[in-house]
Amino acid sequence: MAMDYDKVFNDAIKALQDEGRYRQFADIKRRRGNFPMATHYDGRTAGGERAADNRTVAVWCSNDYLGMGEHSKVLAAMHEALDECGAGAGGTRNIAGTNHYHVLLERELADLHGKEAALIFTSGYISNEATLSTLASVMPGCIVFSDELNHASMIQGIRHSRAEKRIFRHNDTAHLEALLADAPADAPKIIAFESVYSMDGDIAPIAEICDLADAYGAITYLDEVHAVGLYGPRGGGIADRDGLMHRLDVIEGTLGKAFGIMGGYITASTNLVDVIRSYASSFIFTTALAPALAAGALASIRHLKESGVERDQHQERAATLKQRLRDEGFPVMDSESHIVPLLVGDPVKCKRLTDLLLHEHRIYVQPINYPTVPKGTERLRLTPGPCHSDAMIDHLIGALKQAWHELGLQRRAA
Amino acid sequence: MAMDYDKVFNDAIKALQDEGRYRQFADIKRRRGNFPMATHYDGRTAGGERAADNRTVAVWCSNDYLGMGEHSKVLAAMHEALDECGAGAGGTRNIAGTNHYHVLLERELADLHGKEAALIFTSGYISNEATLSTLASVMPGCIVFSDELNHASMIQGIRHSRAEKRIFRHNDTAHLEALLADAPADAPKIIAFESVYSMDGDIAPIAEICDLADAYGAITYLDEVHAVGLYGPRGGGIADRDGLMHRLDVIEGTLGKAFGIMGGYITASTNLVDVIRSYASSFIFTTALAPALAAGALASIRHLKESGVERDQHQERAATLKQRLRDEGFPVMDSESHIVPLLVGDPVKCKRLTDLLLHEHRIYVQPINYPTVPKGTERLRLTPGPCHSDAMIDHLIGALKQAWHELGLQRRAA
Repeated sequence: MAMDYDKVFNDAIKALQDEGRYRQFADIKRRRGNFPMATHYDGRTAGGERAADNRTVAVWCSNDYLGMGEHSKVLAAMHEALDECGAGAGGTRNIAGTNHYHVLLERELADLHGKEAALIFTSGYISNEATLSTLASVMPGCIVFSDELNHASMIQGIRHSRAEKRIFRHNDTAHLEALLADAPADAPKIIAFESVYSMDGDIAPIAEICDLADAYGAITYLDEVHAVGLYGPRGGGIADRDGLMHRLDVIEGTLGKAFGIMGGYITASTNLVDVIRSYASSFIFTTALAPALAAGALASIRHLKESGVERDQHQERAATLKQRLRDEGFPVMDSESHIVPLLVGDPVKCKRLTDLLLHEHRIYVQPINYPTVPKGTERLRLTPGPCHSDAMIDHLIGALKQAWHELGLQRRAA
Repeated sequence: MAMDYDKVFNDAIKALQDEGRYRQFADIKRRRGNFPMATHYDGRTAGGERAADNRTVAVWCSNDYLGMGEHSKVLAAMHEALDECGAGAGGTRNIAGTNHYHVLLERELADLHGKEAALIFTSGYISNEATLSTLASVMPGCIVFSDELNHASMIQGIRHSRAEKRIFRHNDTAHLEALLADAPADAPKIIAFESVYSMDGDIAPIAEICDLADAYGAITYLDEVHAVGLYGPRGGGIADRDGLMHRLDVIEGTLGKAFGIMGGYITASTNLVDVIRSYASSFIFTTALAPALAAGALASIRHLKESGVERDQHQERAATLKQRLRDEGFPVMDSESHIVPLLVGDPVKCKRLTDLLLHEHRIYVQPINYPTVPKGTERLRLTPGPCHSDAMIDHLIGALKQAWHELGLQRRAA
């Protein structure tokens, strides 16, 4: 009578293995002061505890885009906050968990994006999930217009709201307009989209989408997680770069990528933020972000508001790597941003390529296969940054040439 | 034509204010080395930046039950990890974000609960949401049996799975059995419950629930967030104390309460954990826990596995406070655990009481009103711990007597 639950679980795992999309996590330890280098605890040696089996690798797929995770100001702020107020916040934001660093960080974020208020979450995922699910559910009859390539966390937020959803083709404003025109004029509407799409590195037509939002009376919700810290005179993202922040009702960002820490946030009007703060279950019932993380994020944001050096280096490294790869005939995919996608086009070869890079060349880059990207577009997603030297780029190019040849992949004649 | 969105948001906030359940966060900074004392940045002085307005308060409502957030071993481990590998993890667990501290922490947690495997999340909320939503959705036809007082995160997880749910009366095994007997024998089943219920401090009949799970072929899912670190010879929770850990399929816990950090986790069989790791959207697409947090949690767990001193002090303090309050005729609610609920029974007086305690007596305890607890059972939820001295208990009792009198609340004749 009783279910064989273990068989159910085993079958679910086997299904992923059969499809070639079972994930194995690389066990690494980044070396502070020596980014992008990390120690790799080789999983092949059962346990990975024997020092002899651990090797130094260069990380080429981190989202700590600027290396702020090892910045001296950031670390000093975190050490200080640890000594000052201890490890954890000690409670939810409502029950003993609001630390003064949270308050300061929320003010700093509101200022960064030119908004009245901000709210921090323990992850970017939750900031999207909590905000979209709450926003869409407090407005009866709300329709959410969602770019087809939106992040999983936005999709889940919309799903959890149980509001009606209409999906527009990626960055296609004509399709978005057709859907808006088709919806009841008096229905509350949210247009949810991203600025930089992280797998292709393309950028949304923000101004045109805001024009449509104005014409059809919709709230604009922009996810800038792959842009905050990286674009704009103060690192406010693509909307900052393009002078459009005031046209967005909600700007969502992360503390876990360019700012180098962890956590997510939204910035918006006082009332909108207060609604999320007061109604979102996943915000209310969660222990607050550790004070040291808030202190580190505060230091990182303040530094990147003042300093454009890291942003300039980041763009230069990305442009250099793209050019070097193209010069060698590698199929670099079009990307308007700092993301460097390198097409492989086969899931097995993509995985095999990254294994060769890791084990033969001590280069760590994760394969990106279906369902993260469409079948046939399997790729490496390289994220060069200020920490990657010319010598490291040389090493990467050399390793790629060798592994590419070994796998019978094609390069365009130079 | 266009919606007045700000009015919608304003109305939603006003509704909470009218019901007396609008939350105001107390802005504090805990003082490491001097717990439970904290600096209170008084919101009444607009901004709270002027040092003259900031006052020292004693925190009586933190869930850092043992004060591990200021433990020297914990802080040393966090400082070391910061220096060793920097601030953030730099990516999701799958893409560059698995740090060796995560691997060690997951092994430690599996060992703590006597399970094959463990998985860490950025919060306890997400550990419940991700696990229950994924588990129930990978088993077609699954029915979830859920205690009526389960935490919001479990409720959301079950809701997001879209599985069928049957709610049993709180800790009522007869009702649970009736519901189990009523369900199809061949349907996959999950019984989801908590060990210590955090608002009343009562404890589930774990053995009886496991007996029913055996009889009806159900998976047992136990939330031990208010018990891990606090009960059992190694701090594995109530199931550890009662020798029942092996009878539970999933034990869920938190790093953010007794262990003093932040984050959540599950422990279970290798296959079950692998299913959650591989399928749960809110796990997969989230930047990993900052390495320093994992290092701090590891130090905290290891310490509390060996040391029972903090647990003993914790129980003694809770028993002492309960007795002192009862001796003075205060209406302490029944609680089998370390939680000390003090009945007020009126939302306005409950809020006013905590305002008096904060502003007149420098005692910080958050009012607990509907919907967190049923109307008419509004209360203070006191969480005494090893940091609270006899003198602090004297001060609390004195302040309560004065405020209680001021508000015309009744005490039983001594």
